[in-house]
Amino acid sequence: MSLESFFSPKSVAIVGASRRKGKVGYEILTNMISSGYEGKIFPVNRSADEIEGLTCYPDLSSIGETPELVVVIVPARFVLGIIEDCAKLGTKSVIIITAGFKEIGEEGKKLEEEIVRVARRAGIRIIGPNCLGVIVSSSKLNASFGGDMPKAGGTGYLSQSGAMLAAILDTAKANGIGFSSLFSIGNKADVDELDLIEALAADPNTKVIAGYLESIGDGNEFVREAERISHQKPILLMKSGGTTAGAKAASSHTGSLAGSEVAYECMFARAGIIRCDSITQQFDFAQAFASQPLPRGPKVVVLTNAGGAGIMAADAIERQGLTFAKLAEETIDRLAASLPAAANCYNPVDVLGDALPDRYEFALDVLLDDPSVDAVVVLLTPQAMTQAAETAEAIAKTAQAKPDKPILACFLGASKVEAGVKVLREAKIPQYESPEAAVATLRAMADYVLWRSQPKRVVKLFPVNRRKVESIIDRHLRKGAREIGEAESKEILEAYGFATPKGSIATTADQAANIADQLGYPVVLKIWSPDILHKSDVGGVKVGLKSAQQVRDAFDLMMYRIPKKMPDAHILGVLVQEMCASGREVILGMHRDPHFGPLMMFGMGGVMVEVLKDVAFYLAPLTGDEAKRMLMNTKTYRILQGVRGQEGVDIEAIAEGLQRLSQLVTEFPQIQEMDINPYVVGLPGTTPIGVDARISVEK
Amino acid sequence: MSLESFFSPKSVAIVGASRRKGKVGYEILTNMISSGYEGKIFPVNRSADEIEGLTCYPDLSSIGETPELVVVIVPARFVLGIIEDCAKLGTKSVIIITAGFKEIGEEGKKLEEEIVRVARRAGIRIIGPNCLGVIVSSSKLNASFGGDMPKAGGTGYLSQSGAMLAAILDTAKANGIGFSSLFSIGNKADVDELDLIEALAADPNTKVIAGYLESIGDGNEFVREAERISHQKPILLMKSGGTTAGAKAASSHTGSLAGSEVAYECMFARAGIIRCDSITQQFDFAQAFASQPLPRGPKVVVLTNAGGAGIMAADAIERQGLTFAKLAEETIDRLAASLPAAANCYNPVDVLGDALPDRYEFALDVLLDDPSVDAVVVLLTPQAMTQAAETAEAIAKTAQAKPDKPILACFLGASKVEAGVKVLREAKIPQYESPEAAVATLRAMADYVLWRSQPKRVVKLFPVNRRKVESIIDRHLRKGAREIGEAESKEILEAYGFATPKGSIATTADQAANIADQLGYPVVLKIWSPDILHKSDVGGVKVGLKSAQQVRDAFDLMMYRIPKKMPDAHILGVLVQEMCASGREVILGMHRDPHFGPLMMFGMGGVMVEVLKDVAFYLAPLTGDEAKRMLMNTKTYRILQGVRGQEGVDIEAIAEGLQRLSQLVTEFPQIQEMDINPYVVGLPGTTPIGVDARISVEK
Repeated sequence: MSLESFFSPKSVAIVGASRRKGKVGYEILTNMISSGYEGKIFPVNRSADEIEGLTCYPDLSSIGETPELVVVIVPARFVLGIIEDCAKLGTKSVIIITAGFKEIGEEGKKLEEEIVRVARRAGIRIIGPNCLGVIVSSSKLNASFGGDMPKAGGTGYLSQSGAMLAAILDTAKANGIGFSSLFSIGNKADVDELDLIEALAADPNTKVIAGYLESIGDGNEFVREAERISHQKPILLMKSGGTTAGAKAASSHTGSLAGSEVAYECMFARAGIIRCDSITQQFDFAQAFASQPLPRGPKVVVLTNAGGAGIMAADAIERQGLTFAKLAEETIDRLAASLPAAANCYNPVDVLGDALPDRYEFALDVLLDDPSVDAVVVLLTPQAMTQAAETAEAIAKTAQAKPDKPILACFLGASKVEAGVKVLREAKIPQYESPEAAVATLRAMADYVLWRSQPKRVVKLFPVNRRKVESIIDRHLRKGAREIGEAESKEILEAYGFATPKGSIATTADQAANIADQLGYPVVLKIWSPDILHKSDVGGVKVGLKSAQQVRDAFDLMMYRIPKKMPDAHILGVLVQEMCASGREVILGMHRDPHFGPLMMFGMGGVMVEVLKDVAFYLAPLTGDEAKRMLMNTKTYRILQGVRGQEGVDIEAIAEGLQRLSQLVTEFPQIQEMDINPYVVGLPGTTPIGVDARISVEK
Repeated sequence: MSLESFFSPKSVAIVGASRRKGKVGYEILTNMISSGYEGKIFPVNRSADEIEGLTCYPDLSSIGETPELVVVIVPARFVLGIIEDCAKLGTKSVIIITAGFKEIGEEGKKLEEEIVRVARRAGIRIIGPNCLGVIVSSSKLNASFGGDMPKAGGTGYLSQSGAMLAAILDTAKANGIGFSSLFSIGNKADVDELDLIEALAADPNTKVIAGYLESIGDGNEFVREAERISHQKPILLMKSGGTTAGAKAASSHTGSLAGSEVAYECMFARAGIIRCDSITQQFDFAQAFASQPLPRGPKVVVLTNAGGAGIMAADAIERQGLTFAKLAEETIDRLAASLPAAANCYNPVDVLGDALPDRYEFALDVLLDDPSVDAVVVLLTPQAMTQAAETAEAIAKTAQAKPDKPILACFLGASKVEAGVKVLREAKIPQYESPEAAVATLRAMADYVLWRSQPKRVVKLFPVNRRKVESIIDRHLRKGAREIGEAESKEILEAYGFATPKGSIATTADQAANIADQLGYPVVLKIWSPDILHKSDVGGVKVGLKSAQQVRDAFDLMMYRIPKKMPDAHILGVLVQEMCASGREVILGMHRDPHFGPLMMFGMGGVMVEVLKDVAFYLAPLTGDEAKRMLMNTKTYRILQGVRGQEGVDIEAIAEGLQRLSQLVTEFPQIQEMDINPYVVGLPGTTPIGVDARISVEK
């Protein structure tokens, strides 16, 4: 159902309107009136005939027509009745401001659920309860007690916290920042963050979707939809509670490395969502996205009237990983021909402390012409001859004439540049507190451009033996076993096209030597016990055994020593396995996030994964591109490519392994965690081997 | 010579005072008058009798007394004459505002040098030229055209850029931030950044020294003095131009990894200087350092009236590496006994949206009592019942009663919290734009506390054979050779107490096999040529040779292949060397920074140093603590300690190696760059081996 009636209702009833100043019912009514709302307003209040000049009705049915939107402020126990009235009248959109529901405990939760049930049956959409309300600039609607109507602007905002929304509104007002609309979503009993993001995506007045969230409902649907919407409009989110939320104890490497923070980071990366760390940063980003064209690339030029400030900006460009634009010869010549001799015509372009508006205008115009410039940061420091307002006008004029590249301004100072900042705001040139902040914003824009330019995601499906895996998992689940043993883990790997090492279980030293003779030397011995997860920690792995004698010795030593270390472990024998061809050991892993599903992991294997934590995560299902990007996102990628005379390994084969694992865990949601470790990869053209795997399953 | 006359002169002459508004000579004179300066002001101007009610003198000698401070604004060509007049009169302190000296080229530079010469002879100290002047709050002195007199405060500021200083003054004014003094240091012809930092250290009105610098004069003296001063007062610096300044091409690993940025980072770390990335951040830090006690540790508690904001702060605490305080049982009980049932009595403490000042006062008081709390971040969001000003008063009152722990406030919003922010400023409780910014400030304070708590630096001196090294270096320098060959590099290592592998040079395959027989197998072969720096890149290293036959084969293959790859290389033979006992390969290095001297480097050896760049730098000479801290600052430190069943290596021995290298490069400033790579370290108690070294020298 459309949320359009929340954006531009023709009439609004305020149930619980009050004539007492300070009461929420008064605040909302007066906000409705003072915002200049042009539809009909119906205050509903049993004990008043008139409030603020408007006729008051004892209840909804007395109005005599159907209000398109109803705002509910009455105490919690009356709310269900109001919803029933709405159902009778045919009102389809309700904002419940009232608190005292899910957030106060079980009783409130039940009441909230009952309200939603009634509403759903009647086709009513509800925003709230426990929220500040809704503000929409284009329809002059301020059905909230969050604050005064802000300026109109291109940003649509949704907030899960009323307090944050109030702070945001107040800060925005002081900084002259505008909004298309603001939604306080409260308990999200019915309309949730995704509904509103979708509505804002469809809203022609919204250029940028921004929000503050504390939790996300259906992770998978959110990712899918947000990804689609990000291609149309940028989504800027503050998400709190990332780092502190404790990840549940995990037995796999992947699990222990992936906190819930990682899941959110993966989700944001996949969906193209731009994450913001603070209100200030969100405003910084939103301003530019709402008013400036996207940069074509990462090449930034700095225009300044003070060398020091220019260098600060240059430093920031390098720190942010953007490109310090190398100006074309022609640009330098044009600048040099007209600027004073002492000016710097290379990036950062310094038009000198005595620059008047004409110099800024000229230089900016020349820089915008240069094809090696993707974006311009214009700095101004207040010096003796500086004309801040006139310079801002010159910048705005030039920007208007050449509107293809983003221009971000940073007028340093306060009262001396105030008039200039005002001109910039009116001309919709974003102004920043520091060169740092302007450059960080350009970085966010460049990242977004890069994300948008990705080819369409195509997930390859490999032919696999799905039934085989199904039967192994079913058997385990029926027994109530959570961990799949090494032998059956190998069968699962093979069913999904992974090569695994040959080998068999021995229960005596002689048998071990026999198996080794058949495999050919060298071999590996591994203790075989369902109770021993970290074999090497107890001396349960011995590699590079070169003769029958060495195999016998290693077997007997394990049988002698390990039971002493782990007296309760049930030891089934020792696995005798061929040694893998030499190659790099990497780890392919998966950890299933309760919200966002399988998080794929890639990292260097062995000790490195633990010590360096040089790993990359991505949401399944993976495309080939994404699998390769995971490799490239690790620092050790260069080792895989080959360094200093060492040959590189088969990178495509690792990417394929990740895609096969992604397919496996996508097709079997019962798999909770999985590591293929080590996954041994050799020269290009050779077949990598999944030496060991740990798989845990759950119903 | 003391700079006191710049702080509190009894009389000031303004040479070049003007009656024309907009002229610098007018600005400075009127700034002097309007700031309420209580000493005598002597305007000097040939063509006026009186300006702004003050008697005007045609020249300095006509004043009839000796002005303590002279401010010079006349054109550059007249400045030398004024300095000569000052010398005659006995004035010892001069501020030269005038530009047109070193910054315009050779001619200006000569004039500037001549002025300094005359001044030095007369015992005159000069600030400038090419500066904005000086502001000192305590003596109501505004001898500048930087702007109006700011509020008095605890921060003393120096800036190498006039434009940045003007921006800083203007921003500070808008935010109600005060200063003890501000100095624009311009070309630093005489008084430089270090002179002023020392003067501010001695100034009783300055609690925090802050500055903006683009370059630093004598690096070594700066480090030494800044380190001393940081123990008394915090130094907060913005330093621009770090990342872009190209490091000169370097042949060693250490050199190529150490940009000039690294040198500054090392210098800041050693001297305890707190680096700031922007004006905003510098203000953030300065406010807290100037007004709050230092935290005893890293444990932070958050007090809030909105859950979401509290979580944002908690996230920031985790991101900044601070500790999220775990409150004492007693604290929780006390809070629970008096706060509403819905309040959260654990960190972050949430006193709820309807909290009035009393709840803030009570909770803050309880939290300040808790020994497991080192610092408090107080958040406030503007909600319906919020009383921002009264809450600020309650916070201020509590802070005054319990002044031992830092309290940082973040009132979110703008107009709705404005009155509260004003109260906070007056009570000297720093207020931040975001929880992020407050927490980042606490991190800077905690780092500073940690730096100050370090034990006194004691550099150990090892008994070494200094003469031996001297003769090798002298011989090379006399020949004009820059690189010291492997054989003599080994002699240098041995002279400074490093063990090196045994071995000799062979020129035939049989000779190589003979040497190997004597050393015992396995051995290593290395091509021996002054022209081949990266031996492994050309196949010039072969390890693990186990028999005479293998040695002969390897010898002949090198002799056949390498001349093809490097036809111009002069090959002297092949070094046959014992294999080192197995151990970890690390790299010890040094790169001499032109400003700050030897930068010591530690990192994992081999491929890792190149791929991961997991290295740590520190300024020589190193103490034992510092050497160990370098190890701990690498991610691979855990590998050295031993992981997953692998034994650890002798960490003390690596630290000793770093100290010996530090001593070597400190005693021989001719050594420009040096790598000991690999430095092979075995189990604790074994002797590490410096297998290879690269040393380059210069006069």
